[in-house]
Amino acid sequence: MRAAKAYAAHSASSPLVPFALQRREPLPQDVRIDILYCGVCHSDLHQARNEWNATSYPCVPGHEIVGKVAQVGSGVTKFKPGDTVAVGCMVDSCRTCPSCEDGLEQHCEHGPVFTYNSPDRHSGGMTYGGYADSIVVDEAFVLRVPEKLDLAAAAPLLCAGITTYSPLRHWRVGPGQRVGIVGLGGLGHMALKFAHAFGAEVVLFTTSPGKAEDARRLGADEIVVSKDAEAMARQASRFDFILDTVSAPHDINAYLNLLKRDGTLTLVGVPPEGLPVMPFSLIGGRRQLAGSLIGGIRETQEMLDFCGEHGIVCDIELIPVRQINEAFERLLKSDVKYRFVIDMATLGGELAGN
Amino acid sequence: MRAAKAYAAHSASSPLVPFALQRREPLPQDVRIDILYCGVCHSDLHQARNEWNATSYPCVPGHEIVGKVAQVGSGVTKFKPGDTVAVGCMVDSCRTCPSCEDGLEQHCEHGPVFTYNSPDRHSGGMTYGGYADSIVVDEAFVLRVPEKLDLAAAAPLLCAGITTYSPLRHWRVGPGQRVGIVGLGGLGHMALKFAHAFGAEVVLFTTSPGKAEDARRLGADEIVVSKDAEAMARQASRFDFILDTVSAPHDINAYLNLLKRDGTLTLVGVPPEGLPVMPFSLIGGRRQLAGSLIGGIRETQEMLDFCGEHGIVCDIELIPVRQINEAFERLLKSDVKYRFVIDMATLGGELAGN
Repeated sequence: MRAAKAYAAHSASSPLVPFALQRREPLPQDVRIDILYCGVCHSDLHQARNEWNATSYPCVPGHEIVGKVAQVGSGVTKFKPGDTVAVGCMVDSCRTCPSCEDGLEQHCEHGPVFTYNSPDRHSGGMTYGGYADSIVVDEAFVLRVPEKLDLAAAAPLLCAGITTYSPLRHWRVGPGQRVGIVGLGGLGHMALKFAHAFGAEVVLFTTSPGKAEDARRLGADEIVVSKDAEAMARQASRFDFILDTVSAPHDINAYLNLLKRDGTLTLVGVPPEGLPVMPFSLIGGRRQLAGSLIGGIRETQEMLDFCGEHGIVCDIELIPVRQINEAFERLLKSDVKYRFVIDMATLGGELAGN
Repeated sequence: MRAAKAYAAHSASSPLVPFALQRREPLPQDVRIDILYCGVCHSDLHQARNEWNATSYPCVPGHEIVGKVAQVGSGVTKFKPGDTVAVGCMVDSCRTCPSCEDGLEQHCEHGPVFTYNSPDRHSGGMTYGGYADSIVVDEAFVLRVPEKLDLAAAAPLLCAGITTYSPLRHWRVGPGQRVGIVGLGGLGHMALKFAHAFGAEVVLFTTSPGKAEDARRLGADEIVVSKDAEAMARQASRFDFILDTVSAPHDINAYLNLLKRDGTLTLVGVPPEGLPVMPFSLIGGRRQLAGSLIGGIRETQEMLDFCGEHGIVCDIELIPVRQINEAFERLLKSDVKYRFVIDMATLGGELAGN
């Protein structure tokens, strides 16, 4: 075992504080990564505060990880020390069920091993995430990061990026289509970039008129303020596909009614309660309401390569790790454009004074 | 104009009574049909009693019509007097919008003309349906009925049949698939017959254990009593497709969770209120919740031809027209196996005594 520095929550109500943990020595298939940057996902806050009632403490969040390979196990073939790599939401899965065989490890029938707060198959206990200076991961779950990307701004691609890229690809968004993106936050701003890059006509739905200028810069062709009933009515039955990134309760029927016949609205946000769906909103146009969860490893690599080719990264605010608790508070107010990323170099001196 | 005998509701709270109406003389494209049988759909009851708040009175329900051609207009090419024909839920549409051009007239962007309680483009007023001894319909909306079918039992194919056939075809139900049918009523019993005929493994979900024997006869390979939590748990993530025919409020998430990854649950019943959908039921398996509305004219003919080839008709209880009000009351108690059909020959003497 090897000591690593990290930040952890020790209870649902306490702030994250410096924490010393142990990473396993690399097994033959393992890659040890020195973490450079880690994005701050809203899931990190949910888990740190036990809002999903499944958190084990101490909890080290973080699943938008970019770093450099420091060491590889004897059997590793894909990576060598010095490579720029990434780790997303998963660090393992059964690899033999139909979903794993289809490259959709996020739907592993035995449950994937998530990057944090999942039972650790190697070390016992729970997995610890990327709010740390290093991590050890099986090479099958390590991604290659195109060299030309800004590495800090690439980190959130590992969750916010793939979560929006995957459904836009699965439902074949492309030229000639009119596509709606609901919500402009960490997920929504990446959805705008990808839908635009895929050649679709992109419309942002937002409750905030003030976001219009930013939305156009990010790829929106049109902005609709969703509180404006007349503006919404003008969009009826005009969309091939809508990606809904909103996690707060909201009226889903208002968006279902904007779909053309045979159109699909896909949820990637996870509102905590049931969304009342009016059956006729679906029946009236043979419409579909779907959900999508991150993406598989193969598609995550495809997404990173696409970003490398098209120069796509996230819009971020880089913070030192000691500001993580303040960042959580600002997240709750959507006060970030559009993702916090922790500069892990700032972790160096943190444990000394503890 | 030509007099026709019918049964009509004159208000939301009054029973259906004999009614004399006028049908137009056939225009060049029109077919005049002597109605032999008309099925009794739950929609007829909703409309007669103004439960959808859109009924014009007098209201002559009925959109599961089978009869013989009595007369054709000068331009009619597809039919001749004596042909056995049918009319379903629609008698016209714009014929030029993308949905009409795709053969999906039920999704006509200008709204199809429904067989009853729709503005009548020829005669003014509202359309009058099949609880009558004749009807005049443009040949483009007249279907051919295979001669070998029992004509009374074929009548409900025009709504209950196509409403279940269309989604089972659209979502490509076939051999090697495990398919669930929720509810065993007018729609559900046809869904069992079609899903079985298409070669799928068919499971009926019902609240009534007493329906098991009948369900097996109709095509179910397995019956699950949906109130039995353990039996439901054993079905988790096992279905490629589920067709939900239930119109009463019910827990849709209990069925979404039975879908495999990428499976679809399609609603054809129309519960009056919103169905709360838990987002994670969709996101967890990239599942889809969809809706489907009857079927287009081309597909309705395909369905009738399929029924002719496979000897499929509905299970019906034939009634004289004077029993329609009693039939409505029994419908409310689901006391019919599985569809009432009115024998229109019984209409003959009704007006005399009125």
